[in-house]
Amino acid sequence: MPTTHVTQFTVEFGDCDPAQIVFYPNFFRWMDAASLHFFAAAGIAPWHRRDASDGIVGTPLVDAQASFSATATYGDRIEIETSIVEWRNTSFVMRHLIRRGTTLLAEGREVRIFAQRHPEGGQRLKAVRPPADIRRRFE
Amino acid sequence: MPTTHVTQFTVEFGDCDPAQIVFYPNFFRWMDAASLHFFAAAGIAPWHRRDASDGIVGTPLVDAQASFSATATYGDRIEIETSIVEWRNTSFVMRHLIRRGTTLLAEGREVRIFAQRHPEGGQRLKAVRPPADIRRRFE
Amino acid sequence: MPTTHVTQFTVEFGDCDPAQIVFYPNFFRWMDAASLHFFAAAGIAPWHRRDASDGIVGTPLVDAQASFSATATYGDRIEIETSIVEWRNTSFVMRHLIRRGTTLLAEGREVRIFAQRHPEGGQRLKAVRPPADIRRRFE
Amino acid sequence: MPTTHVTQFTVEFGDCDPAQIVFYPNFFRWMDAASLHFFAAAGIAPWHRRDASDGIVGTPLVDAQASFSATATYGDRIEIETSIVEWRNTSFVMRHLIRRGTTLLAEGREVRIFAQRHPEGGQRLKAVRPPADIRRRFE
Repeated sequence: MPTTHVTQFTVEFGDCDPAQIVFYPNFFRWMDAASLHFFAAAGIAPWHRRDASDGIVGTPLVDAQASFSATATYGDRIEIETSIVEWRNTSFVMRHLIRRGTTLLAEGREVRIFAQRHPEGGQRLKAVRPPADIRRRFE
Repeated sequence: MPTTHVTQFTVEFGDCDPAQIVFYPNFFRWMDAASLHFFAAAGIAPWHRRDASDGIVGTPLVDAQASFSATATYGDRIEIETSIVEWRNTSFVMRHLIRRGTTLLAEGREVRIFAQRHPEGGQRLKAVRPPADIRRRFE
Repeated sequence: MPTTHVTQFTVEFGDCDPAQIVFYPNFFRWMDAASLHFFAAAGIAPWHRRDASDGIVGTPLVDAQASFSATATYGDRIEIETSIVEWRNTSFVMRHLIRRGTTLLAEGREVRIFAQRHPEGGQRLKAVRPPADIRRRFE
Repeated sequence: MPTTHVTQFTVEFGDCDPAQIVFYPNFFRWMDAASLHFFAAAGIAPWHRRDASDGIVGTPLVDAQASFSATATYGDRIEIETSIVEWRNTSFVMRHLIRRGTTLLAEGREVRIFAQRHPEGGQRLKAVRPPADIRRRFE
C-alpha cells in the first residue's frame, strides 16, 4: 500500500503577491488538494461519491500549521509529498513536505477529522471515527 | 497605543467549499489581511509606500498555524482580533482570534519577519530587525 | 423597492499580483459576492436556506464579462453598484459598476440563471424560470 | 511556430463552491495562467525576467469575457486551448477553449495590453505596443 503520495503543482502568476512570492495561504490550498490526491491515489472515491453510502462529506481541518523556509515564485514547479503520520481516535495527522527540486520550501501539518452531515441538518458537521475501509489501506 | 485591532469580514459564497463551510485556507487569507489592517490602524504606512524609504516590502511568514473549533458559512459576519504577542530578534508573533458574535471559530498564530529585497535582486528577500519606529508603537 | 445595491470591499495585499495591482479574477469574485448581497439587501433569503423549499441552490453564470479602465491596489476601498438590467426567459442580466471614490475601475456584466439540483442527482444543475417572488421585487 | 497551446489543470475541492461546481472566477484564474503558459511555450521569458530589459511587467487585462456551457467539479481534469486571435495597435485578443475530454465547458476571451511601469512610479502601468520580438513569433 502506498503510504506516501507526491502531488505536483505549478506556481502561477496569480498565486504570487506584490512581494513577487507565493501568497502564503496558497500553500495551504495546495496542501488541502494534496490531501485529497493522497486519498485518491490510494483508491478511495471522492467524498461526493461516497456521500450516498456512509455520509462522509469531507475531511475538514481541526488544526493546520506550516513553517516556511524558502520562497517560491511563478513558473516554479513544486511538489508536495504527503503522508499520514498519526491516527487518533476521531482524527488523523497528515504531513506535507513541499519542495522545488531538492529545496525544501515548507513543511506542513494538518490534523483532520472525517465528517458527516449533522443529523440536525444545515451546514453543521460532526466528527466520526475513521472509516475502517479507509484506515485499513494505510496500515 | 492600540495593542489590539479588530478587522471585520463577510464570509462570501465563493469562500465556501462543497461541504458548505469556509474553505480553510481562506482563514489564513483573512488573518494575513488582518495583520496588515493591524499595522495600518496603528498609523504605519502600507509597505509599498515605505518601500522607497527603508525597503521593507512586507512581513512574510516564517510559520503559520490555526486551530478550528467551529465552522462558518456564507452570510456570516466574522471578526478577527489581532495582537502582537511576542517580539523576537528578527521575527514577531501575531495572534488572531476569529469569532462570529461570541462564538470562537478559530485561533491563529503567525510568526512573521520584516523583509527587504535581497541586495542580489530578483524575488529573494532577507529578514531585517523590526524597524524601531514600528516596534516602538506597540511597547 | 431597491433596484440598485452598493457593496463595499477592501482590496487586500493578497488580492494583488506581482504587478502590484488587483489580480483580475478577484474582480469577478467581488462581483459574484455583490450579486448575493444585492439579493440579500432585497430581503431574499440565502440560497442554502431556500434550498429546503423551492430547491434553488444558487444563480450560476451563463456568461460573465468585465472591462477594466483603471487599476486598484491594496488598501484601496472599492464599491460595486449592482443592478439587474434585463430579465429573460430563464436568465437575467446583472450589471456591476466598480468604483474607487469617483473613479470607475471596471464595468461588469453577469448573465445568470436560477438553478435547481438536477432530478438525476450529483452535481448537475438545471435552469428554472426566475421564481415569481424574487422577480416581483425588482419590477 | 506554435499558435495554439494547451494547458492542463485539475479541478480541486477548494475550487468548488457550495453548489458543488467550480466557483466561476476560477475559470478566469485558469485562463490567466493559460495565457502565461502560452507565452512560455513559445519561448518567451517570464515577465519578471524581462523586467530588467524592456520593462514589460505583465499583460494586464482590458477586457475579459467567458460563456459557460457545462459545469465541472472536483477531480475533473480540464484543458485550456489558448490562441491569439487578433493583434491590435496596443492590445491583443486571446481565446481560451476550456474542455473536459471532448465536452466544451467554457469559451473565454481576454483583451490584454503589454504594460510597462509608468515613468511616474508607483503601481501605475502604461500600455505599450506589442514588443516586436514577441509579436513576430505568432505571425
